[in-house]
Amino acid sequence: MASSFTLLKKDPTGARLGRLITAHGAIETPAFMPVGTQGTVKALLPRDLKEMGCQILLGNTYHLYLRPGAELIRALGGLHRFMSWDGPILTDSGGYQVFSLGAMRKLSEEGVRFQSHLDGSHHLLTPENVVQIQEALGSDIAMALDECIPHDANREYVQNSTERTIRWAERCSRARTKPDQLMFGIIQGGAHQDIRERCVREMKPMPFDGFAVGGLGIGEGEALLHSIAESTAGWLPEEQPRYLMGIGRPENIVNAVRAGFDLFDCVLPTRNARNGTLFTSQGRISIKRAEFANDPRPLDDACDCYCCRNFSRAYLRHLYMAGEILSSQLNSLHNLYFYHRLMERCREAIRQERTDFWS
Amino acid sequence: MASSFTLLKKDPTGARLGRLITAHGAIETPAFMPVGTQGTVKALLPRDLKEMGCQILLGNTYHLYLRPGAELIRALGGLHRFMSWDGPILTDSGGYQVFSLGAMRKLSEEGVRFQSHLDGSHHLLTPENVVQIQEALGSDIAMALDECIPHDANREYVQNSTERTIRWAERCSRARTKPDQLMFGIIQGGAHQDIRERCVREMKPMPFDGFAVGGLGIGEGEALLHSIAESTAGWLPEEQPRYLMGIGRPENIVNAVRAGFDLFDCVLPTRNARNGTLFTSQGRISIKRAEFANDPRPLDDACDCYCCRNFSRAYLRHLYMAGEILSSQLNSLHNLYFYHRLMERCREAIRQERTDFWS
Repeated sequence: MASSFTLLKKDPTGARLGRLITAHGAIETPAFMPVGTQGTVKALLPRDLKEMGCQILLGNTYHLYLRPGAELIRALGGLHRFMSWDGPILTDSGGYQVFSLGAMRKLSEEGVRFQSHLDGSHHLLTPENVVQIQEALGSDIAMALDECIPHDANREYVQNSTERTIRWAERCSRARTKPDQLMFGIIQGGAHQDIRERCVREMKPMPFDGFAVGGLGIGEGEALLHSIAESTAGWLPEEQPRYLMGIGRPENIVNAVRAGFDLFDCVLPTRNARNGTLFTSQGRISIKRAEFANDPRPLDDACDCYCCRNFSRAYLRHLYMAGEILSSQLNSLHNLYFYHRLMERCREAIRQERTDFWS
Repeated sequence: MASSFTLLKKDPTGARLGRLITAHGAIETPAFMPVGTQGTVKALLPRDLKEMGCQILLGNTYHLYLRPGAELIRALGGLHRFMSWDGPILTDSGGYQVFSLGAMRKLSEEGVRFQSHLDGSHHLLTPENVVQIQEALGSDIAMALDECIPHDANREYVQNSTERTIRWAERCSRARTKPDQLMFGIIQGGAHQDIRERCVREMKPMPFDGFAVGGLGIGEGEALLHSIAESTAGWLPEEQPRYLMGIGRPENIVNAVRAGFDLFDCVLPTRNARNGTLFTSQGRISIKRAEFANDPRPLDDACDCYCCRNFSRAYLRHLYMAGEILSSQLNSLHNLYFYHRLMERCREAIRQERTDFWS
């Protein structure tokens, strides 16, 4: 199979400029993927996402599997058509959400049994059916099933879990039947560099189209997050895309770009937006603060998004205080615009071999 | 003062085609005004409203006066700039909301004292300060202060209240200081034709730029609504615009257009949208119904709004069931688009002297 990823350039810091070809178009990397949990990026129309330069969305298999159901989405023409997004979509495996259920799930070699958070119904996710579900959804990039290990697990747990994740990855890669759907393996191993390295070594020969690094950003702390991400990136094959899962603070994304990661996702920009926390070129702003009540300035002078071009901080604060839906819409629009400009600036800096732009 | 309203045509049924010129542009009538209660039409960006052919918005003085405050909005450049809407805006007087407060308000010749629904603080609305507030907001059309009489009030109450509304109208018209802001008087009189007629007779000589008919659609029933609206329209001056307040069911709007009304407003299309009730060429649809779960068709085959061009009923149902914000966005977009097409069809039918299009 021809490689779907082209490494266009590597700058002195290790940051990479690339292009990932999928069945629904190309993605210029490094790229950020807004999270469309339930078949929608909350509070945004697909055309708003296109307009801000969004290249690829992430869909959550767990949520879509439970509601409205993967077979229903398949019958309706797949997830792209269902949500009216004709660009690339990556789906996660559902594993992360299931592991978040805590007492409501039970793990075995076969897979993971869990109860729905919606109605308590019983379900089983296996490496095989996770692939089938993602094929039914019709995403462009599917993820292998893994266990996201709690950051405070002991070494023995991490070792056993990672070995199972490796076996599951093998089973996932064998279950594939859809030639135009890419699949990424997921590297686990907690905070143990040797276990991470072994995970990479074992998965590298498997027929994956890229690799993700999982199990980070879950409480291990900034220093550990960065050192693990950096060393794991170093072991991964250079000619394949690298996706750092769930890492979303702008400064962490920039660090990870320097460490050689290509893809990112996080609910942070959209969730923060709904909570009134907004990203600006001058740092984060909590729009509910009283000082903004009569502030006629745009949220961010340096931003040319629809929100900053048309509205004042005073108006955004008013919408938030009044509980208006438009608050979530405008804030989400701005925050995701900010993230896409950040990635654009990353790509431009790598292209120009400027290493100072993000400091 | 040159008349702001031009009656372009009157068809055999009595329906009127007109043009109302305001400081922020012209409105082709009959026209529907979406309600932007708190400085936003819920769940819609101003550009979405422009795109669907929206000509004029309604803002609620009561809500904006309490939060964020009329003086704040004035300091920020007025309501247009605050909400980034450069088309015409009509503001109500605040009277209707205050009268809805029930026990929390007290009426006198001076005006109406009330307690804020937000924090219980005490306020007084008078004919004079209602004009001042609307001038601070900077709307293109202001409304006089009136009492919206409960539909079950006895004749004596209706008579006394209407007399006070007439005196208040006089006070409002004398309080005006802003030459480019139009003002409409409001006809009350409950279900009593003679009191309505007297109200028209008394207000007609006042220097208003148009007249509204209030106190309808509040429980009096369809037959009474129509007969009062129709006869009142007949007494109003032909050369001025006529606004039937708060009447919003499509069939009632069409009937009122035939009776000679030019302007309409109602929260129905946007409130229904958020509750999942959608207007289509085939009647109303409750999108939550199970039959739509796997329905691949657009909401309305005959509609070419962004929602109907891009999404299935199955998707709209999914969004509603999942409690997604996008549900309110798409539904509001569709319902208001439906209303604007309805008004467009009314205007076209009057232009062509077709009297059958709305049956």
